[in-house]
Parts: sequence; structure tokens; C-alpha cells
Amino acid sequence: MMRAGQDRLARIVLSFVADPGDPVLGALLRSCTPADITGVLSSSADPRAALPGGSREIPGLSRAFERWRARLDQVPSTGRLAAWDRVGLRLICPGEPEWPTQLDDLGAARPVVLWLRGAADLRYACLRSVSVVGSRAATAYGSHVATEMAAAVAERGWSVVSGGAFGIDSCAHRGALASDGLTVAVLASGLNYGYPRGHHDLFAAIAAQGALVSECPPDRAPTRPGFLVRNRIIAALSRGTVVVEAALRSGALNSAKHARELRRPLMAVPGPVTSDQSAGCHELIREAGALCVTGARDVIEHVSPVGTDLAGPRLGPAVPRDHLDPVATAVLEAVPMRGGRGPASIAVLAGVDLDTALRCLGLLAAAGFVQRCEQGWRARKDQG
Amino acid sequence: MMRAGQDRLARIVLSFVADPGDPVLGALLRSCTPADITGVLSSSADPRAALPGGSREIPGLSRAFERWRARLDQVPSTGRLAAWDRVGLRLICPGEPEWPTQLDDLGAARPVVLWLRGAADLRYACLRSVSVVGSRAATAYGSHVATEMAAAVAERGWSVVSGGAFGIDSCAHRGALASDGLTVAVLASGLNYGYPRGHHDLFAAIAAQGALVSECPPDRAPTRPGFLVRNRIIAALSRGTVVVEAALRSGALNSAKHARELRRPLMAVPGPVTSDQSAGCHELIREAGALCVTGARDVIEHVSPVGTDLAGPRLGPAVPRDHLDPVATAVLEAVPMRGGRGPASIAVLAGVDLDTALRCLGLLAAAGFVQRCEQGWRARKDQG
Repeated sequence: MMRAGQDRLARIVLSFVADPGDPVLGALLRSCTPADITGVLSSSADPRAALPGGSREIPGLSRAFERWRARLDQVPSTGRLAAWDRVGLRLICPGEPEWPTQLDDLGAARPVVLWLRGAADLRYACLRSVSVVGSRAATAYGSHVATEMAAAVAERGWSVVSGGAFGIDSCAHRGALASDGLTVAVLASGLNYGYPRGHHDLFAAIAAQGALVSECPPDRAPTRPGFLVRNRIIAALSRGTVVVEAALRSGALNSAKHARELRRPLMAVPGPVTSDQSAGCHELIREAGALCVTGARDVIEHVSPVGTDLAGPRLGPAVPRDHLDPVATAVLEAVPMRGGRGPASIAVLAGVDLDTALRCLGLLAAAGFVQRCEQGWRARKDQG
Repeated sequence: MMRAGQDRLARIVLSFVADPGDPVLGALLRSCTPADITGVLSSSADPRAALPGGSREIPGLSRAFERWRARLDQVPSTGRLAAWDRVGLRLICPGEPEWPTQLDDLGAARPVVLWLRGAADLRYACLRSVSVVGSRAATAYGSHVATEMAAAVAERGWSVVSGGAFGIDSCAHRGALASDGLTVAVLASGLNYGYPRGHHDLFAAIAAQGALVSECPPDRAPTRPGFLVRNRIIAALSRGTVVVEAALRSGALNSAKHARELRRPLMAVPGPVTSDQSAGCHELIREAGALCVTGARDVIEHVSPVGTDLAGPRLGPAVPRDHLDPVATAVLEAVPMRGGRGPASIAVLAGVDLDTALRCLGLLAAAGFVQRCEQGWRARKDQG
């Protein structure tokens, strides 16, 4: 416990001094604990002398420590951390219950911490999720397809992950929200900064029903390289990535590259060959082996484990019922099999407060156990 | 010579009594000569007794002979054949100079004869050719793409093969004609019947510059199965087939199937996923391994022998110069390297009549030796 608390504090420090995806930090964390690194950081010791043997050979080590030490004043006080917590910002670290374990596939590029805001449990929300990404300069066609596809993906009980940007990203989030589905926006800025600012209302809607995610400290503005670095998280959080529209040099192709590197299904939506905004998608299909998908059904086929959704839409849960914690189990038991029940009644029956009930219902929906209905919530018949 | 004449006459008879693609006739021609078959046909002998041993086991043999004998009155007189010849209908048989040898890949389904009308030499015209096919119910998008693609394919010295139908087919022919390129229409009706009738002017334009082709007797109306049977010729004449637009149950998918069976490149143009007319193309890409192509450049890359057009557009000839016959060589030598020369001057210089010069120029263009220019014709610099 002591060790876990130390680890968490050290990760917080590192997340404020190092840039997201810093390769030196990633390499160091292969052989050192976060606390090893912050110990050397807060001393004036030469890292090549003070760190364990293997770490000393990492290229750029000394310059990285210089950079990080220059930023030590940016590490927030515990008071500031507590204030963020009070306004609904959660901070999660690898190994913690809400940490999505699929991020570990990023290896040395795994985020040091993640900041979250929103009703959904990130781990559950991403268990069955698809990334839907594309150009900011979306056409009417791309916007339509992204919205419809995300809505249909969400209707089948899958979450939609995207980057919260203008264009395709926002259509993907909005489509999922329109289906009362879960959606996760991975921002390249801090969550308080909330870039792009024009999406303030969209981000509020995503937080109310899904989750906002960032590896940047809450108040940080986005940087140009930060957008590309962020894309690896979009690809790693989900089971597969769909590019809806992308010009030949679009940033969305960078998310595609990450999906391929992670060996997750990479999918692209075809479009008119006369449209520049579909040229990147066609290039992915022709040159990068992306799967040609025309709708949510294709997408879910490709991201489903063999033998489940392949034979048609499957709506059952992605985790076994007995893996649920006692509170979630209590809430699930309060959800009726027929008809429906409002969240307030469910909270009373389960003996939890309304916020807890709502949060549990969100994660139970993401995991495929329950679904919204006219009267509130009801259990899925195929929950097994 | 005697033998060749006999063979030709027997094939003419067979082409009038048997339906295109008749499987019994195809099987018979593996072990019998055409004259063997017509010999039995014109007698009252039992084919199972009169034909060579191996043929006797072909299923449906007796019924086929009954069918064919009932139609013997449809075989035209030599006078009628001569009349067709005078109005510009040519009849070619396997092994003759204008017969495209790639049709032999059809095996037992090879046409018995082909009827032709048009300025181009069919064999040369199809040496470097691509089939561009699709729905009759084409959208504005599909029509635009087919026209542009065919025009660009033709500009690069490739011929465009299609079926002369409304919709995509007609756009493909028109695009090639607009680039002064060669185009070949394979009709499901006889060439005098010229189905669809609404394409009378288009067929005249194709004949003036390229070729009309049919395996049906000149006056025969099309039959419903005839369209599907005809598609094998479209696929077999060209190096590869592109489907521009096709609904899920479109006849164009049948041409695609033939191309795949012939192991020729099968290509499909993507389109909006919201368009039913592109659904067949997407299905081909997803399920049938069709190559996703977005323009003429992709198409030519896929149909070019490895190492030629692959590295960029190559405009050189597909046959070596020393394979040309003496007349074509004389015409080629009369075509200047720079500037250009009109066909009348070329005819005078080559010592041939104008019709011969025009026909040779057409085939030399199809084979990549010469190109049209403002002043008439000039040799291609890269003709090697």
C-alpha cells in the first residue's frame, strides 16, 4: 500500500515534468520504479551514476534530467491535487482498478498517468470499444457516415473512442451520445484546458455519459507534437480503429499507424474516389492492408473475438458476472429483467447513493449487462 | 489450307445451331474437330455411335444434337455470308490472325466464332486492354468515374473493353472515344441487331474507331442468359476487369467472377457507403479480394506485367517491333518521330491505300508504337 502510494506520487511528479510519450522516461521505466527516478530527480545527483546499471546507457539521459529538473516547479501541491479531485478530475495510474490494461500493449510508450473526467468507468467503458477517427475538414458525407456508424456501434453496446476534435471526431462522439451509448474522448490538451474550446458543450455531454481522458496535466495547452503523441492512446484504448475520412496527409493516418503497430484491426471507410477527404482511406485499404468497412456491422465483426459477434450482433457482457465488485453486483441485481426501473429506485433497492448507482449503471451498460429503456434501465436478456 | 477452310465453315454452322457457351459443344470440341461434329450433325447418325470414343460419354450429347439439328435451317447460305462481309461484318475463328489468343484461356467455354465490325484489329486492340464494367443504373458519380477512368486508361495507350450497355458500360466506351482511344464493345445480341437499340450512334462511333464484337449470329436478338454468357468474353479479352459501380446483385459482379476465375486482376472502384450502387464494389473488395482502385494509374499498375508500368506510366509497345507484319512495318516507318503526319500522307509514303493505312495506324496505336497528335500521327518516343 505504501509502495503503491509512493508509485502514484512519483508518477504524478513525472507526468508534470516530462512531455507525454517522452522516450527517455519510457525507457527508464522499463528498469526503474517511478520513485527511483523521482529520487534522483529531486537530488542533484548525476543520473548516470545514481540510477541502476542498465538505465545508464539510455541515450539522452542527462539532457532529459536537465529538462525535467527545470520543470520541477510545475509539480502541483497536494492542495492543488485535492482541488482538482473535488471538481471531478480523477487521476489513474497503471495497475489501478480503473486503468485500462490494454494500454500496457504500448510498452515503453504507455502513458505515465491518465486524467479522467466523466460518469463512466474507463476500464469498463473501453472493454468493448472502437476508435472512430478522421479529418477535421470532414465533408458532409464523412460527417454523416461517422455519426451513423458511431450511433450504430453504440446501439450494439460498444463504446466509441475518438479525439474530441472538429470534424469526424465530434461526429463520432455525437453519434454515440445520440444512441445513449458510451463515448470516450482522448484530448491532446489538459482536461481543464479542454481543447478545442468550441467543444465545451460537447465535452460536458461526453463527461455526463462517458469519459474525457488526457495524459496531460489538467491546465496544459495542447502542443503540435502532442496531437500525434495522443493518437497512440486512441488506438490503444480500443479493440480496433476505423478511419472514416482522411486526406492523404491527414493526422488521422497517424492513429491508423498506431493501430497497425498494436496489431489491432485497422479499418477504413471507402468514399467517392473524387473526394480528397477519402483518398487517405483508399490509400490505407490499398497500401496498408486496412479492412474496407461500410457500416457498424462490418466494424463489430472485425473487432469481435472470433466466434462471438461474427455470427451476428451479440449484446452479451464482455466480462463474466462474477468478476463484478460487490457494489456493481448489488446494482445489477436491482435492475429488472422485464419492463424497466429508474436509477433512483435502483439506488434505493441496491442500498447505494444515486451517484454510485448511475456510475455502476454506466459501467454495467458498457460491459453489456444492462441497457437503457423507456422506463429507465433493464437487464439484457442475453447477459448469460 | 483446305483444312482451315473446312474448320471455318464447320464453326460457322455450329455458331448458328448452338447457343453461345453451349457446354456440350465446348466439351465436344476438346476431342473432335468442328468438321467431325458437323459431319455427324448433317447425317442422321446417332452421335454416340458416330463420334470418336471419348466424346460419347459427354452428358446431354443426344439432346444437344436434337437441338442443333432442329436449327440447321438457320445456317446461312454462302450468299448471305458474303452479303454480311460486304457490309463490313468480319467473322473470325480461333487460330486466325485477328483472333485474340487470350480467349483460349476460356478452355471449353471459348467462343466458337466471333463476329466483328470496326476499324480496329481485335487482336492488337486487346493486347493492352482493360475491361471497365458496371451497373446499367449508374449514378452521376459512377458515370463520372467510369468516363474519366476510361479516358485516362485510353490516354495511356490502353484499350477499354465493355459491354455496350446503358450506364457504366456506355460511359466507359465514351470516355475512351473522347481520348481518341480504342474501345471494344462485346454485345449480347448479334451485331446487326445491335442491342440496346438506343446505342445505335454509340455503336457506330465505336466501330469507326474500335471494334464491336459478338459471338451471336448477326441478326440474333439478345436472350436473358445470353448477357451472363457474354460476360466471360469481356473478362477474357482484357488483362483485367474494373467494376466501377454495382449493386449487390448486379450483373457486373458476374463479369467480376469470370475475371477471378481467369486469374486476371479483378479491381473495384470504391464509392460512398451510402450508395447502393457501390455496395457490390465494396463487397468485391471485402469478400472477393478485389483490388481497390481509385483511378487509371492504379488500374494500369495492376494489369501491367511486373516491372513495366509498375514504376510509373510506360507508353511503350506491348509487342516487339520485329513481330509486325511487313505492311504494318511500312506504315510505322512512314510515321514521323517529331511533329506529325496525316493518314493520307502516311498511306502514300508506305505505299498502301488509305483504308489499310488507317487500320494499321489503329493497331500500331493499340500496340503502343504510334500516337495521335494535332497534325495526325507520330511515333512514340519510348517505342524502344
